[in-house]
Parts: sequence; C-alpha cells; structure tokens
Amino acid sequence: MNSYWKSRYWLFFLFLVAVLVSVGVKGVAQNSPLNDPLYQLNNKVDSLIDNQESLNIFINSLWLVIAGALVFFMNAGFALLEAGSCTRKSLINILAKNVVVFCIGTLAFWLLGFNVMFGDGVNLLNNQSYTCPLPNTNIQTHTGRWALGFELSFPTLVDPSVTGVQNSNKGSNPLGFPENGFSCLKQMWPNRSFAALFFFQLVFADTAATIVSGAVAERVKFNAFFIFSFVLILFIYPIVGQWAWGPFGWLYQLNFRDFAGSTVVHSVGGTAALMGAWLLGPRWTQFDYDPQKEIRQGNSTSVEYSAPEDHTNKLNIAHSPGFVTLGGFILWLGWIGFNGGSTTYLSYVPHIVVTTMIASAAGGITAIFIVQGLADQDPSLGTFINGILGGLVAITASSAYVRIEQALVIGCGSAIFVVVGEAFILPKLKIDDPVGAIPVHLGCGFWGTLAVGFFANPNSLPYGGIDGTNLPQRLQMISIQLLGWVVICGFTALASWLAWVAIGYGIFQFESFNTRRQILRQQG
Amino acid sequence: MNSYWKSRYWLFFLFLVAVLVSVGVKGVAQNSPLNDPLYQLNNKVDSLIDNQESLNIFINSLWLVIAGALVFFMNAGFALLEAGSCTRKSLINILAKNVVVFCIGTLAFWLLGFNVMFGDGVNLLNNQSYTCPLPNTNIQTHTGRWALGFELSFPTLVDPSVTGVQNSNKGSNPLGFPENGFSCLKQMWPNRSFAALFFFQLVFADTAATIVSGAVAERVKFNAFFIFSFVLILFIYPIVGQWAWGPFGWLYQLNFRDFAGSTVVHSVGGTAALMGAWLLGPRWTQFDYDPQKEIRQGNSTSVEYSAPEDHTNKLNIAHSPGFVTLGGFILWLGWIGFNGGSTTYLSYVPHIVVTTMIASAAGGITAIFIVQGLADQDPSLGTFINGILGGLVAITASSAYVRIEQALVIGCGSAIFVVVGEAFILPKLKIDDPVGAIPVHLGCGFWGTLAVGFFANPNSLPYGGIDGTNLPQRLQMISIQLLGWVVICGFTALASWLAWVAIGYGIFQFESFNTRRQILRQQG
Amino acid sequence: MNSYWKSRYWLFFLFLVAVLVSVGVKGVAQNSPLNDPLYQLNNKVDSLIDNQESLNIFINSLWLVIAGALVFFMNAGFALLEAGSCTRKSLINILAKNVVVFCIGTLAFWLLGFNVMFGDGVNLLNNQSYTCPLPNTNIQTHTGRWALGFELSFPTLVDPSVTGVQNSNKGSNPLGFPENGFSCLKQMWPNRSFAALFFFQLVFADTAATIVSGAVAERVKFNAFFIFSFVLILFIYPIVGQWAWGPFGWLYQLNFRDFAGSTVVHSVGGTAALMGAWLLGPRWTQFDYDPQKEIRQGNSTSVEYSAPEDHTNKLNIAHSPGFVTLGGFILWLGWIGFNGGSTTYLSYVPHIVVTTMIASAAGGITAIFIVQGLADQDPSLGTFINGILGGLVAITASSAYVRIEQALVIGCGSAIFVVVGEAFILPKLKIDDPVGAIPVHLGCGFWGTLAVGFFANPNSLPYGGIDGTNLPQRLQMISIQLLGWVVICGFTALASWLAWVAIGYGIFQFESFNTRRQILRQQG
Repeated sequence: MNSYWKSRYWLFFLFLVAVLVSVGVKGVAQNSPLNDPLYQLNNKVDSLIDNQESLNIFINSLWLVIAGALVFFMNAGFALLEAGSCTRKSLINILAKNVVVFCIGTLAFWLLGFNVMFGDGVNLLNNQSYTCPLPNTNIQTHTGRWALGFELSFPTLVDPSVTGVQNSNKGSNPLGFPENGFSCLKQMWPNRSFAALFFFQLVFADTAATIVSGAVAERVKFNAFFIFSFVLILFIYPIVGQWAWGPFGWLYQLNFRDFAGSTVVHSVGGTAALMGAWLLGPRWTQFDYDPQKEIRQGNSTSVEYSAPEDHTNKLNIAHSPGFVTLGGFILWLGWIGFNGGSTTYLSYVPHIVVTTMIASAAGGITAIFIVQGLADQDPSLGTFINGILGGLVAITASSAYVRIEQALVIGCGSAIFVVVGEAFILPKLKIDDPVGAIPVHLGCGFWGTLAVGFFANPNSLPYGGIDGTNLPQRLQMISIQLLGWVVICGFTALASWLAWVAIGYGIFQFESFNTRRQILRQQG
Repeated sequence: MNSYWKSRYWLFFLFLVAVLVSVGVKGVAQNSPLNDPLYQLNNKVDSLIDNQESLNIFINSLWLVIAGALVFFMNAGFALLEAGSCTRKSLINILAKNVVVFCIGTLAFWLLGFNVMFGDGVNLLNNQSYTCPLPNTNIQTHTGRWALGFELSFPTLVDPSVTGVQNSNKGSNPLGFPENGFSCLKQMWPNRSFAALFFFQLVFADTAATIVSGAVAERVKFNAFFIFSFVLILFIYPIVGQWAWGPFGWLYQLNFRDFAGSTVVHSVGGTAALMGAWLLGPRWTQFDYDPQKEIRQGNSTSVEYSAPEDHTNKLNIAHSPGFVTLGGFILWLGWIGFNGGSTTYLSYVPHIVVTTMIASAAGGITAIFIVQGLADQDPSLGTFINGILGGLVAITASSAYVRIEQALVIGCGSAIFVVVGEAFILPKLKIDDPVGAIPVHLGCGFWGTLAVGFFANPNSLPYGGIDGTNLPQRLQMISIQLLGWVVICGFTALASWLAWVAIGYGIFQFESFNTRRQILRQQG
Repeated sequence: MNSYWKSRYWLFFLFLVAVLVSVGVKGVAQNSPLNDPLYQLNNKVDSLIDNQESLNIFINSLWLVIAGALVFFMNAGFALLEAGSCTRKSLINILAKNVVVFCIGTLAFWLLGFNVMFGDGVNLLNNQSYTCPLPNTNIQTHTGRWALGFELSFPTLVDPSVTGVQNSNKGSNPLGFPENGFSCLKQMWPNRSFAALFFFQLVFADTAATIVSGAVAERVKFNAFFIFSFVLILFIYPIVGQWAWGPFGWLYQLNFRDFAGSTVVHSVGGTAALMGAWLLGPRWTQFDYDPQKEIRQGNSTSVEYSAPEDHTNKLNIAHSPGFVTLGGFILWLGWIGFNGGSTTYLSYVPHIVVTTMIASAAGGITAIFIVQGLADQDPSLGTFINGILGGLVAITASSAYVRIEQALVIGCGSAIFVVVGEAFILPKLKIDDPVGAIPVHLGCGFWGTLAVGFFANPNSLPYGGIDGTNLPQRLQMISIQLLGWVVICGFTALASWLAWVAIGYGIFQFESFNTRRQILRQQG
C-alpha cells in the first residue's frame, strides 16, 4: 500500500509535470497574450497590413494626382496649339478663352457635374436616392446625386512615416469621402482618396470643354463661350459621361467600352465644337464667306460693314508655328497622364503609355506620307501634328486593351480620318475649323471607339467586356461601340445646339437668326 | 505484482508519450529556432517591416522629387510671364535674370541658406551647437548650423527590388543624411532622404528670389540683380524661413501657421520686390517719370539724356500674350507640387491639390467679373491671370487646413487684393511693377496668411495649431497670423533695403543717391 | 484490486487529459491548418509579401513612367532651343524635324533597336540565341535578339486595391514580358514592367537622335534627316548602347561606367551631329562660306545661284530668345527624369537630382564669368544656357557616383568645354553648329565620361566599378573611361559618315560630292 501510494504520488507528480509542460506550451502560445510571441507577431502583422493599405492608397492617389497634373497641363497645350494656328489679331481672345474654360469648368464640375456623373443614384420618378449596391432595375432613371456641390472632408489616414505614429491610424474616414452621396464611386475606384478622384475627373471634364475652343476660334464672343463651357460641364458632359463611366451607366452595362474617353471626352468635345462652328459660320473670307450677304437677305436692320483690311489676307496663317509645336508636345505629354491615369490596374500604366506612344508615332508618320503622296507637297506642320493628335485620340478608347501591332494600326487609321476630314469633308460642308479640332477629336474619336470593337483583347485585365474570340462576338462588340458613340454624340449634338442657340437668342438678344453670327462673333 | 509493475511500466510509457508529445510541440514551436515556424515567420515579418519602411521612404522621397520638379519648372513660368509682359527690347535681360536666379540661388542655398534654415541649433552667445532634442530655452538664439556647405553622403538603403538582395539592407545611413548638423530636420520630416528634402527646399528658396525679378523688370542691372539674389537666398530668406518652418522656429511655436509659404515664400519675395521697385523708381515715361529731373535737382554731374524714342511708346505693352498665358499655366501646374509637396501627410496631397485648384479658379472668375464691372471693359488677360495666381498665392498658407467652400472664399478674396493693388494702390504710390508681382505675391500673401486665422480647421491633421472653435480663439489665431506676417515682412523689408542700397552704393560706386537709379538701371 | 483498478482508471483518465491537452495544443498549433493561428498568420504574411512585391513593382514602374515622361518632354525643349536659335525662315522645317524624330525613332526602336540593345544574346557565328544566364565567353559576338519587333504581352498582375481581390494574383506573366527574348533584361532591371523599361529606353534613344537635329539646323533636307534618324535608332545607337548598357556589354564588363549616358546618349548624338554638320558645310555667309565656289571648282553642272538677300544678314540671330530660354528650362526639367530614372536603386534618385542641379548651376555661373572675363562683354544668353546644359551633360555619367563638391567641379569644368568649343574650336574647324550642340553634347559628354574616372566614389551603391582608392586604380579607371569613349565615338563617327554619305549619294542622287551639300540643304 505504501509502495502503491508511493507509485500513485509519483505517477501523479509525473502527470502534473506533463500537464504543466502542456499548459506551459499553451501558455506561451495562447494564454498570456502580451508575452505570447504569436500574439505579438499577429499584432506586428496587423500593423503591417494597415501600413501596406496606407502605402497602397498613397501610390494610387499620388499617381492620380500626377496623371491629373499632366492632364491639367494639356490646357496649356490646347491654348498654344490654337493661339499659334490663328492670326495674331485674335491672340488675346483665344488665350483668355483657354484660361477661363478651366476656371469656369472647375466651378461647374464641383457645383453639379461630378455629382451627376459619379454620385450615388437618384430615381427621378420618386425622388429617392440610393447608396451602393444598387438594385439593377430602372438604371436609366438613376441620374446622379441629388444635391449641389459637396464638402471635402479631411482624410483621417495618418502616414506611417509621421513621427511617433507606429500604426497608421485610419480613423473613421481615411479617404476623405463626403459622408454620403459617393458610396458607389468608392466601390468602383477603391483605395483612392476622394479628392484625388475629383481632381482627376475634373481635369478630364475641362479637357472636353477646351476642345470646343479650337473649332470656334477667332469668331466666338468671349462671354458666349464662357456660358457655353459652363453649361457643357454642368449638364451635358456629366450626363453622357455617366452613361459610359458612371457607377450604373447603362452603356457600360451593355458592354460599351471607352477606356479613357475617345467618346466620352473627345467625341463629346468634338460634337459640341462642330455645332458651334456650324452655327457660327466660317471666319470672314474663309470659303468666300461674307456675313453681310446673310444680313442683306434677312430682315436685319444691322448696319452693314465689310471685312477689315487686315483680316482679309491673314486667314489660315498660323502666326506662330513654335506655339503650335510646343502645344502639340504638351498635349502629347499630357496624354501619358490622360490614358495612364484612367486605369484601376496600376500594372497596366506602362503598357498603356507604350501603346499610346506607338499610336501617336504611327499617326504622325502616316499623316506625313499621305500628305506627301496626295498633294505632292511638303508635309504641313499642322497636318503632321494633327496626325499625331489623331493617333492619340483614337488610342484613348483602347490603350489598355490592345497590343503594339494593333496600336500601330489604330494610329495609321486615325491619320486617314484626320487628313480626309481636314482636306475633304470640312471644306465640303463649309465648316471652318481653324485648328482641325473636329477631324482630330470627333473623327478619330469615332474611329477609336470602333477600334475597341475590332481589336480589344479579352486577355487584358482592365477590359472586362465581351469575349471577342469569334466573328459574331466581334460584330456584337462593334455594334455596341457604334451604338454607344451614336447615342452619346446624338445627345451631345442636340444639347449643344440648344445651348448655343439659347445663348445666342436669349442672352445676346439679337434681332434675327441671320445676325446671330455677328452677335456671337469675336470681340474687336 | 507482475501485473502491478506491468501496469506501472505501461503508465510510465504512457507518460513518456505524453511528455514527448508536449515536448514535440514545444520543440516545433520554440526549441530549435532555425526549423521553428514561428521563428521563421518572425524573420519573414521582420524582413517585411524592413521592406515596408523602404517602400515608405521611396514613396515619400519620390513624391518630394516630383513635386520639386514641378516647382523647379515654375522658374520657366515666371520667366515667360515676365518676358511676355514686357517690351521686346528688355527680353534678353529679363530671360537671363530668370535663368541666373536659379543658378546663383542653388549655390547660395547649399553654401549657407539650408544650414541656417534647417540645420541643428547654434547658440550665438556661447557658440555651442546642439542636436535634437533641443532644450526649448532661448529659442531665438538658435540660428542654424554653424558651417558652410555640407557633404551629400551616399544613402546605404538597398532597394528590395535589386537582384539578390532579399532584405533591404538599410546600413548605417539609409537616408544619406550628413553625419552631423541635421538631426532636427530628420525628426521633422521622417522617412525622407536628405537629398530629397534639400532639393525640395532649394526650389522653394529659388521661387522667392524669382518673384523679385518681375517687379524690377526692365530697369535693374543684371549684375545688381545677380548679387541681390545671392544675398536674399544666403541670409534673408533662410532667417525668416527658420522662424516659421525651422526645427525650433519661434513663430511656429507661437502657433503661427504658414502651410506652404504665403508668408515665407510669397510675402518675402513680394517685400523684397517692393523694396527693389521703390528704390529703382519707375520705368521711363511710366507715371510721367523722368529720371533727369532727379538728376538735375541733385548734385549729379551725370550727363543728361532723354528717353529713347522706341522706349517711350511701348511701355505697358505685353509683347507676347502667348508667353504670359503659357507662363501662367506653368505656374499653375507648378503649384500642384508647391502645395502638394509641402505636407508630411501623404493622405492630404489630393485634398491640397483640390483646394488649390478651386481657389485659383475662384480667383480667376472673380477677377474677370470685377474688371468687367469696375471698368465696363473687356477683361485684361494680365489681370485675369493675376487673379488666378493671386488665388494660388492666397491658398498656399491654408490649402491643407480648409475645405472647398473656404478655398472658394479665399480665392474670391484674393482677386480683390490683386485688382485693388494693381489698379489703385501701386499707381497711387507711383511704384511701377510691370507684371503685378507685388499685389499678387505680397498682397495675396498677406490675405492668405490671415485667412489661416479665419478658416483653419482643427480637424485637419496637418494643422496642429490653436483650436478655433470659439471667437476668442479665432481672434487669437488671427492676431498671431498678423504678427508673424508683420515681423517677417518687416525684417525682410529692412534687410532688402539694406541689400539694395549696399549694392547700389558699394558695388556700382555712384556719386549720389539720385543717380543710383540710373546705375542700377537695365543694361543697354 | 478494486481500488487498484480504480487507481489505474483514474491514472488512465489523467493520462488521457494530459494527452488531450497536448494534442489540443498541437491541434491549435499545427494539426488542423484552417483553424491554426500560426497557419493563418503564415497565410496573411504570404499575402502581405505578395502585395508588397506588387507595391514595389508599382513604385518602380511608375517612377520609370514619370521619369520617361519628363525625358519625352525634352523633345519639346530641343525643338524650342533650336527653333529659337535660328532664323524665322527655317522655323517650320526645324520644328517638323524635331517632331518627326520622335515618331520615326519610336518605330525604329520597336522594330529593331530595343532588340539589339537589350535583347537576349545571339551568337552571330552559329546563329544561336541564348537566354540568361549566359556563358561569359565570346561576349563580343552577342549582338542582340535575332528578331524584328516584339509583342507587348498583357501583365497579369492584379493591383491589391482592385475590389474583391484580396491577394495580388501575379499570374504567369506579372510584368508583361514577351515570352522569350528579354530574360537578361528582366534580371538586370528586376521588378519593372517590360513596357516601362521599353518606354524609358525609347525616350532615351530619341534624345540621341534629337541632338543631331540642332547641329544640322537650317540646311539639312527634311527627308534626309528623317532617314538618318531612322538609321541611327535602328542600328548605330543600339549597337554602341549595348556595349555599355546591354546585358553582356563588353565595355561594362571592362568596368566602363556611364551612368545615364554622357557617352551612350550625348556623345553618340554629338558625334552623329558633328559628322552631319561637317559634311553639310556651314550655312551660307557663315565663315564667309559660299557653296557656289565649291560648285565652280567641281565639275558640277548645277546652275549657279547666290544667297538670297534675306538670308544674308540674319544668320546667327536667335529669332526668339524666349523659345531658347523655355527650351533650356524644359531640358533642365527633363534631366531630372533623365538621370533620376536611370538607377535601379530608388534610394539614389534624390541624390542624383541634387548632383544634377548643382552641376547645372555651376556650369551656368562659370559660363557667365568666363564670357564676361574673356570678352569683357555681357553674357550671351545662348552661351549661358549652353553652360547649364553642358553641366547637365557632364554630370550625366556620374550623378549617382559623386558628391556635391565633385558635382560642382564637374559643372565648372563643363562650362570651359562649352565656351572653348563654341568660341575657338568650331570656328577654327569651320564647322557651323547653330545651337552649339557639338560642344555641349560631344565636348561635355567627353568631359563627363572622363570625370567618372576622376571622381567616382566606391561608397556609392550603384557604382559597382573599380575601387579607386589609390592612384594606379584611378589611372586605370580613367584609361577605361577614355577607351570606352573613343571606341563608341569612333564607331559612331564611322557609321554616321557612312549613313550621311549613303543618304546623300544613294537617295538624293546628286552628281558630284561637291553638290551634295546643296542637295541635303534645307527645303525652300
């Protein structure tokens, strides 16, 4: 019994050791969290994850800011291209227009445009607003956040590099989104600060408005252009932009794809420009145009006057080819941001830049060969640069979806659109476009939008559209691209026509339609 | 007994299994580190932390470089704005000044300026130098590192992407800081390479010097301007800059806040410009100014001469509005880096860019409306662009601290300062400022500095000043802002006056004070 | 017996508890992976590593894109510098050349140049191609990938920020490298996307071609320049570039170091420019040059003609100093990307930018002092800006290897090369270089290449060459630098001479060597 108990004690003691050992292991692994290496490691890792998310947000947001800065600088490019292409006489008017368009566009886009284009849904029928995820029903009736302007909240995300802050404290609103109204945008472009998204989309919107400026140069009144730009960015651009890019755009859901805006930015700008140039009529002496004839034929009581001497012989003379070239280079540079910033996949940025460069080079070289072949003459600098810009406009819709060889074909094709538009179509229609903005932006915008249908590759991660591996699918893609372009440009044409006419009639109070051209004409 | 021992053996065997199992668990978890998964994981995590710190350093330093590049480019903007605003005759002198100012400023800032502004403390009384953390006593006597120039050490931080290097080896001096003299700067701007900080601050300093150039255009001697720029960047700018931005700046410690330099850069540049423009007198024929009258009234023995024919009628004519506009756009672009690079919180960069854009747009639009309203005339391109630049100058002090609506108000206000300064105050004082640099940089710098007091929001992480939730606090904020501006501009005015006069008297050896103006006058 | 068994049961029960406890610990720690915290943590960490690699790739690739964009913009700088330095008459020809050179260079570099310079090895003797790692034997026979063009594959790297993707899925080809042909490049520049590398090298190549444009301005035919640029980027530049920068460059393996291309880009461009300027002869009236004399002396049957009136008196007049200055600023800005993008060590980017800025400032200031001292005249704007550009060219080879003081010396030295080259050597040789491209790019390229031998510091991580701590090593470094420069410029001179003559003889079908100059002459 003694030995029995002895053995029992001994065994019990052994058992205790075993349990303690086990518990010791558990203790180290789980029981006392603060000294537990696994727990500590977990904390370290959680802090790493936090900081990595911060770094990810910083890279994405900074890239949007940098790309946006390049796009912003395109305003200077448009201004110089246009100023250099016109006569010295119109210089100040042209420059002022190109500066003011950014100012007024910025306010309009903040006031309403951005809300309409990227705000959460509002159902016009029942005046009810939604936050994402939205029911996919009645998507046509969702036309934006139902409010003017928005507050820019302060981000609460602390940079891990700030002294004394070990973990990035992401607080309640790390990305600075307004409290409500943009939950869908946050889903579409995750990990970007709200301000970065607004800035990037803002400079895009202003690009659309600047395109108009070129086609109506030398004859639009400063104030008329001012008001038109405001209307364009307030309503027209955001409505069609929402169809293709917005969180519940019906065209996007039909698999219409417009990567960085061959349709949304360039064709819209080109269409608004076409309406303006058509309604304003050509510059004096261009196409033998004399506005007095129209006045005489109408019932106008305006005083007659003749084209001033110095105006007559100086048309179509680019007064500063240096400005034209510098403007072209600035636009070319800006397109790196324009296309490169438009993707949520940072891994595609360099790919996009390369296809963009290849298409522009192909456009330029093709334009030179066509002009030399066609006209047996030295290449015109303006046409050459427009060939490059045409290539850039055309690749805009597909730069993330195509390979080099396809970018080359797209670039070559766009030069044809530019040359044919400049040399044949516009003169035929007697539409005077001093800088060739309409063939470049509308013509190549059309070609670029279609080219997505021809060439888009399903292997491209950002594409996400119809798999075009067989002919019927390709035809479907092309049809949808065509449909999207026609609908957007049709709406824009109608809305722009209304806006231009309303500005002419309503605000400048002219007596007859015939004299509208005078009233909209450039200030002395 | 047999069975008893049997059972004991069996129990002992069971116990051994239990212990071995426990020990096995412990062994795997802790005992042999090299095979221990927790140990290995810990190593992996440590390597991740290292690499994450490297990535953080890269993002922060690259952003400073990119922002600095944009600010550097502002030199081109100032050159074009100024060249375009003046007559063709002065073109080469103006351009050369705007190029040389960067060269000489760079050398001056390396030689002394950066040391004074951001170097560790030196107590002038006992000639003792400190490293951070500093005792907070006698802060006024700390006026910088007590040495000329500095070495740029090679960073030892290895990019984790370099082949064969699995961990980033951060070595002894990952950020390339000099061995001593800048420990305070390293604390203030953690995780940025020394070279990145120097480059960013360098382009800021040169901006201050470039501002002067505009106001003294068309009449300062190249060499006089050259020497003044050297003095400005060597002494004046760094001393006042240290008060507001330096590691122990007494104004900063009083809660004076100047985010990106409405006072430190723009008001200082504007004050130096004002002193120069006042001492140089106006350009000939401007304000009916004729320097010969002064010569006659004085005891000068200089030969009399009259304004050259071609000089008389061409004043106030911007010979190249294209340059003015392009210059304006380049400055506008550069401000994205100017304000965007000035924060240690990367999450605030897009916010800052948006408030900057909004204020500039508001400034431009307001300037147009004021000029049209006041003068019943078409907006002047120069005033319009100065309205935009005024908005940019004003928002500089507060772009990280305010919301969109407040940026809008600040922008609108600055246009008033620009127009009133250009149209009323300068002509009243007969101070000739060919490009309007004084109203834009000094006037809007004043307004922007005060606006921090009115609008700064304590919810903004970078703000870190007085909590302005009630009126007395607001009044305190405004008073401190006013105090800082007055002290800095007062010191700058005095020092600039001394420098201009010393250059005039000492170096160009004129006979009387009256003729100083001639001697400083533009080279033929 | 009962108590005996009882105790046995009890002990067995205790034992079971002990085992279960142990097993429980093991189970938590190892056995059931999905619930095992260590396993889960490991997964978290693996996902962190994946995402960190993605972030690293994004930072590196985006920086290459941004730096490449700045270098791209240098094309505008060269165009303006050149256009501003020449007469208004040649303006359009000059601008068109500077635009087309990027277009044609882009296509040539895609077609062949990039393959030759960075493609995997091809042994010409046995027509066998290699992938890395290569045997180091017969390195001279490896002359590039043996194919025309390449496909741009779509990257499969998913941004961790894309919604719903928790881990970055790096797929089979995260960096978008073509399936074969560029394995060596992938090793040399790890963690950069293929497209980013191509874009960055592309803009470098085009810079070399653009340099030529300046020296042959005002007299080369557009089409001759067009073809020469194509040949230069197709063959000449990539062959010598491969020697110094390619994956098995024999000069690199000899420890020849040319950081960002003082030799590879600038001296090559300068040599090609020198051959062109020498073969074309000077502009009319420059150096009393009259091409008719040569025609008379030869057997040419060409009609004689005299220099047109308006050509005679306007040579050497920079028609737009504003363009020259703006061009200079744009080049200066571009150099931040040119040098800053050329390193695989992101930690060196700010260091590189600072040495670059210091050298340029030193070059500019020295140029001003030399010209004022030498000629007792006001500094010429062109020489001043060329001093700055010379400093930039010279620091290009060593900006990552030297300190501020050494950058200062390099910058000062380059100004001497510029002034001596412009004022003495070129006039002596009667070589007409309208913009001073040859002294700037060839002269300072030579000085910068040698300066690596004098100043390169082994403490610089990117250097990786000979340790120059004693004199014999320094002498060896200098000799190798000299050898590399002589070999590369010798080959370029020969190949360029052949190309210019072949274009003159073969394509433009002139009758005699004397009249070649006319035939290559600028279009009317």
